[in-house]
Amino acid sequence: MSSDMEAHKRTAARRAADMVKSGMVVGLGTGSTATYMIERLGERVAEGLHIVGIPTSEDSARKAKKAGIPLTDFSAHRQLDIAIDGADEVQRGPLHLIKGLGGALLREKIVAQASKIFVVIVDGSKPVDHLGERAPVPVEVIPFGWECTAERLSACGAKGVKPRTDRDGNLFVSDNGNMILDCTFGPIEDPEDLARQIDAIVGVVEHGMFLNMASEVLVATEQGVERWEP
Amino acid sequence: MSSDMEAHKRTAARRAADMVKSGMVVGLGTGSTATYMIERLGERVAEGLHIVGIPTSEDSARKAKKAGIPLTDFSAHRQLDIAIDGADEVQRGPLHLIKGLGGALLREKIVAQASKIFVVIVDGSKPVDHLGERAPVPVEVIPFGWECTAERLSACGAKGVKPRTDRDGNLFVSDNGNMILDCTFGPIEDPEDLARQIDAIVGVVEHGMFLNMASEVLVATEQGVERWEP
Repeated sequence: MSSDMEAHKRTAARRAADMVKSGMVVGLGTGSTATYMIERLGERVAEGLHIVGIPTSEDSARKAKKAGIPLTDFSAHRQLDIAIDGADEVQRGPLHLIKGLGGALLREKIVAQASKIFVVIVDGSKPVDHLGERAPVPVEVIPFGWECTAERLSACGAKGVKPRTDRDGNLFVSDNGNMILDCTFGPIEDPEDLARQIDAIVGVVEHGMFLNMASEVLVATEQGVERWEP
Repeated sequence: MSSDMEAHKRTAARRAADMVKSGMVVGLGTGSTATYMIERLGERVAEGLHIVGIPTSEDSARKAKKAGIPLTDFSAHRQLDIAIDGADEVQRGPLHLIKGLGGALLREKIVAQASKIFVVIVDGSKPVDHLGERAPVPVEVIPFGWECTAERLSACGAKGVKPRTDRDGNLFVSDNGNMILDCTFGPIEDPEDLARQIDAIVGVVEHGMFLNMASEVLVATEQGVERWEP
């Protein structure tokens, strides 16, 4: 990625952070773009912004603490005012998303679903006409019997189902103690139907398609930041 | 429970164990009735039966080892020949089940779904006209954000949603590291519709309704063992 594009991502992330107002409960996304947002929120907290954050991963929790953002959890707050996060693909039009290449899809989805407003920040390489064009759909599964679960995902049309590994080739373990299967579907014609099929598979905890969830998407392009609504 | 009924449960469990043939991969259920079945299988192995078992809980794994049953897992076998397990409720007619009061619903469901034949053994107090008449539906959920997940289960019609605790009042932790929410619905008119609604909730790992899964049910009554098919 060019350093220009990296700068644009940062601009979009800072703009999203600037939507946050004092008194808000804020969902803190995971990944490189979300990290810019957390840094900017930290600056604003230092300047006097009063917020509490709910992080979507252990990694974001660490970054938020470092940035000086006070953290809370769902025992204190059932609803968030705003959640801000990146995405791996954004479908033009309905703004369906694929998320989870960072490994935090489940907590990201719980936070997004519990939030009044869900703002997504991406660079210009992420918009697509159909989900699945470039990214696999990550599916978080229970380790017990994952081999059976993988076969059922293939039966839903996945051309490839690959257990995610870390740099050393060991099976990746999510913050919830589960595995991720990266499922290559190619362009997905009917994401809602596919989501229903995957949800019904025993052993699947959650999938990385976020359908009808984004309130707005900030897209950082070479021409600046575009704001999309569904 | 009367000692007579306990004896009948044991008879049904032994009859189910006697359906197993040499060479089979056998799913080993969890709970008091399943324990009788594991003990009987152990006797048959000592007499020369050649099988391998896949246990549905750490508890059943221990009991099977003690009984001398060789164990395997899904890395060696994608499909089981037979699975035998108890249930908390059985709906007369379609033989839909509620399972999971023992805390092992997810592994039990993965094993049952992967099995060619799924035999259920219950005592005469378990058959009902509608699921939910007596038993709550146990739902296994991710600990992160469980308070939000509980609210969504209430919105599906649960009159009570209670986090399961152990004898000391601590939150129960499943073999998969998750929580169980016991959801009181009362008689459920349309279990398949309810299952779809619950499956779609982010944070739900699996629910304890086993729909259209039982191949046969052996019901131990004071009059002996009845054999039901859907």
